[in-house]
Amino acid sequence: MTISDDVVLPARKKYLTGSRPDIRVPVREIPLTSGDAVVLYDTSGPYTDPGHLTDLAAGLPPLRAGWIEEARRLGHRTQRGHARHGAITPEMEFVALREGVPPEFVRDELAAGRAVLPANVNHPETEPMIIGRNFLVKINANLGNSAVSSSIEEEVDKMRWATRWGADTIMDLSTGRRISETREWILRNSPVPVGTVPIYQALEKVDGRPENLSWEVYRDTVIEQCEQGVDYMTVHAGVRLAYVPLTARRKTGIVSRGGSIMAAWCLAHHEESFLYTRFAELCEILAAYDVTFSLGDGLRPGSIADANDEAQFAELRTLGELTAVAAEHDCQVMVEGPGHVPMHKIEENVRLQQELCAEAPFYTLGPLTTDIAPGYDHITSAIGAAMIGWYGTAMLCYVTPKEHLGLPDRDDVKAGVIAYKIAAHAADLAKGHPGAQAWDDALSDARFEFRWEDQFNLALDPDTARSFHDETLPAAPAKTAHFCSMCGPHFCAMKITQDVRRYADSHGLSAAEALTAGLKEKSEEFTREGGRIYLPVEPVDSAN
Amino acid sequence: MTISDDVVLPARKKYLTGSRPDIRVPVREIPLTSGDAVVLYDTSGPYTDPGHLTDLAAGLPPLRAGWIEEARRLGHRTQRGHARHGAITPEMEFVALREGVPPEFVRDELAAGRAVLPANVNHPETEPMIIGRNFLVKINANLGNSAVSSSIEEEVDKMRWATRWGADTIMDLSTGRRISETREWILRNSPVPVGTVPIYQALEKVDGRPENLSWEVYRDTVIEQCEQGVDYMTVHAGVRLAYVPLTARRKTGIVSRGGSIMAAWCLAHHEESFLYTRFAELCEILAAYDVTFSLGDGLRPGSIADANDEAQFAELRTLGELTAVAAEHDCQVMVEGPGHVPMHKIEENVRLQQELCAEAPFYTLGPLTTDIAPGYDHITSAIGAAMIGWYGTAMLCYVTPKEHLGLPDRDDVKAGVIAYKIAAHAADLAKGHPGAQAWDDALSDARFEFRWEDQFNLALDPDTARSFHDETLPAAPAKTAHFCSMCGPHFCAMKITQDVRRYADSHGLSAAEALTAGLKEKSEEFTREGGRIYLPVEPVDSAN
Repeated sequence: MTISDDVVLPARKKYLTGSRPDIRVPVREIPLTSGDAVVLYDTSGPYTDPGHLTDLAAGLPPLRAGWIEEARRLGHRTQRGHARHGAITPEMEFVALREGVPPEFVRDELAAGRAVLPANVNHPETEPMIIGRNFLVKINANLGNSAVSSSIEEEVDKMRWATRWGADTIMDLSTGRRISETREWILRNSPVPVGTVPIYQALEKVDGRPENLSWEVYRDTVIEQCEQGVDYMTVHAGVRLAYVPLTARRKTGIVSRGGSIMAAWCLAHHEESFLYTRFAELCEILAAYDVTFSLGDGLRPGSIADANDEAQFAELRTLGELTAVAAEHDCQVMVEGPGHVPMHKIEENVRLQQELCAEAPFYTLGPLTTDIAPGYDHITSAIGAAMIGWYGTAMLCYVTPKEHLGLPDRDDVKAGVIAYKIAAHAADLAKGHPGAQAWDDALSDARFEFRWEDQFNLALDPDTARSFHDETLPAAPAKTAHFCSMCGPHFCAMKITQDVRRYADSHGLSAAEALTAGLKEKSEEFTREGGRIYLPVEPVDSAN
Repeated sequence: MTISDDVVLPARKKYLTGSRPDIRVPVREIPLTSGDAVVLYDTSGPYTDPGHLTDLAAGLPPLRAGWIEEARRLGHRTQRGHARHGAITPEMEFVALREGVPPEFVRDELAAGRAVLPANVNHPETEPMIIGRNFLVKINANLGNSAVSSSIEEEVDKMRWATRWGADTIMDLSTGRRISETREWILRNSPVPVGTVPIYQALEKVDGRPENLSWEVYRDTVIEQCEQGVDYMTVHAGVRLAYVPLTARRKTGIVSRGGSIMAAWCLAHHEESFLYTRFAELCEILAAYDVTFSLGDGLRPGSIADANDEAQFAELRTLGELTAVAAEHDCQVMVEGPGHVPMHKIEENVRLQQELCAEAPFYTLGPLTTDIAPGYDHITSAIGAAMIGWYGTAMLCYVTPKEHLGLPDRDDVKAGVIAYKIAAHAADLAKGHPGAQAWDDALSDARFEFRWEDQFNLALDPDTARSFHDETLPAAPAKTAHFCSMCGPHFCAMKITQDVRRYADSHGLSAAEALTAGLKEKSEEFTREGGRIYLPVEPVDSAN
């Protein structure tokens, strides 16, 4: 199907410039047929720049290289450190412009630990972004191969595809062969921060035997990943020896990979987790590269039955303790959350996390609100994600339709990202985020005014919206028709409402006046002249 | 792809028998490889009975014919009338068995008007079901052609498809040609209650000109549909003349078809709505056939911007008034609700409706929690539907991916039903409905024990769950493997957890004891013997 060029107005990539020419914030501008334009947050990176030539071997341009150099001269190690000393870095100004808030507000939120700006000094390619409850709700897309599926090329492609549709960060969770090489390709080509779970690579180094893990193997793996440029790392340091027995009577035990590995280590050695005992040393390493902690919830519930149990909350208390330790080292910290939680138990998760972890950003996986729908867990979890985002979660880790069943492919990645952009935006609306509703309003205006092309272009997924419409009404005139195939021309409520309003306008009175003034004769005139609700399928002025 | 018969254990249709042999309640039994079975609510009708021969021209057997005859002898006109006089009808006993509650509870809820049992005396084919906040949350699927799309055959097929996947009622919203004939085919073949919006057919009778509508045309249409066997009817009697101006400054005016038709009528005639002024007469007609009112929300918001506004709540107050009038006539009544509502404004809708409408069942369309995702409104609205169900809505009207874009086809109907079964079940869990969690628990057990076939068969959509799994691991041994392609064999958390538990069990101690007793030497033994987390891909005993 093709559409004539004069009708389609695709999105335009633009940049907002800050106080200096090298601070250039990407946005997606949607031009409307009404002459207006809507400006949206954009995560797609340079790939969508007009004229950009993609060269994966060369990687993306190192836009932060100069800023990292400047920051070194300031003498603090992390964005949080700079913020605590009152400095506003170019990264902070970048995200302030991106979020539409003053740079001072960004600095203060970072200093307080209520937000993180994950930006490894060795990842100059990343476009700065901020995660915190007082900013737009963010989403993460998990990528990475497993031993039985996928290749490096596929994973890099999924990374670009995920950010094209709106992923704010991606995590490379590869566990198969060539872990390090896969990560290198992703890092050099990712326009968004990249997270990892270093224990996966550490486990590969000891041939998959958790009992053979050690602090030394783990530490060397972390340093290798810090050097490569990973922006944030999941560390399951809250899985303490004493908590493992708390999972014994659970329906689904331990469902976090990292959590189960550390539990196996603790049980095999009958010792406290080295991630817990060596946590301060780990802080020093991460601080040196400004790698953000994502304190993993290794004991998160894996089923509705296990939600909000003692194992989960015992670990959360430890994560609160570790959050405080990390703060002493100027480390940036976010805290991971569940998982599988029925709706009535969701709010408690946010309340406790915020209370126990000094308001550090919460980063949750879903949660799934029921276990009965494998194949649709992007939906079971979008429900929980929207709610937990409203309650104050700062970033939502997506779940794809393949969850529990297999490794997501390209289509699953898109389905997961779209479901989570919906959840995040619904949360922004519910939180009353300034400006969030402008997007909904623009789309609703386009819908009410039958500007079909605007409605498609403003959609989160324009391709799908357009193709669904065209399944039943593919002809070009239908793009300006005052109905769609759902109700047909006789029964379009919006068309009837417009007819009523048009009658009133053309007679110089508001609908309210037409009624309240009791202009009975005008009503009769309406009936004679314009009361028809049929309308022929023909092009009409698009400004109607 | 084929699977050997000895592995697949498909669902079995069964019947629970009540106090008399003609009260037979359908259930779907899922046999498990563990030897247990899970029994689920079933809406698929006789089509899934073993040996059933479908003959659409003959229609379904009239299972209620004898009960309707008995009820006539009792002398009351409606299930509510019977309940008020203390009678327990076979329909009440049927739904009591279906919901797992005492028949007396069903009777009392009906008598109080907190629940409805839509069952037209001329629709003997329907399997009785109940709608009320103290029962399982129900879902409705909208069907019906429009002037530009679909045929009778397609709509009957969609009806069977929707009930196969779990629709508790369907509405025939046909507005195209052969409205009456389409409805007849659907009614004679539907195992679930059928709802309509009679104003659509009335409008067709006056050539689509709302100003030519009259009470007489409407009344005759209602009687025709009552005679045919429609179980519940949407009546937009709350769109009063004085409320039309309240929509003038809305972003999306009036988005209900029926609401816009009545608003056009009021404006054209400058008179109060005949649905409002003749409401008592309408009650007498509906009571005579025991047709349930579904008081339509003609002024529901059609965008986030218009949610919870004065037009919407003015109409709701009138619906409360009409609920009381209907009660005087022993009519069964439910009340329709929005629409498009951001998350933080959802609860108020339920609270006000319950307060203003004497706790009559609330029946909402979604609500959609954002406007930005045409093509995915089954998801934007499943979020709102789950929440509003939790807050107390009794039935959720589905929204398909085609909403706002075109007439749903067969695939869209399934996508809408599945999304809404998820929302309804998530709400049942959050409300703590007794027994709701058993389904989640059975599936979680199957997941944790790697009973893949049980996990597929227990899924809301077994076909999709199985096909997603088989995309990457199609071989038969993978059906009993202790991992899937998502994490591969090294990294399956559930497998590692099981290894840990197995070690403890085989040594005659719990994981808790292994730790708290400080059995260091046992840990070393575990390391030597069973600490491996690799497992070859080979069939293992399914009882593991």
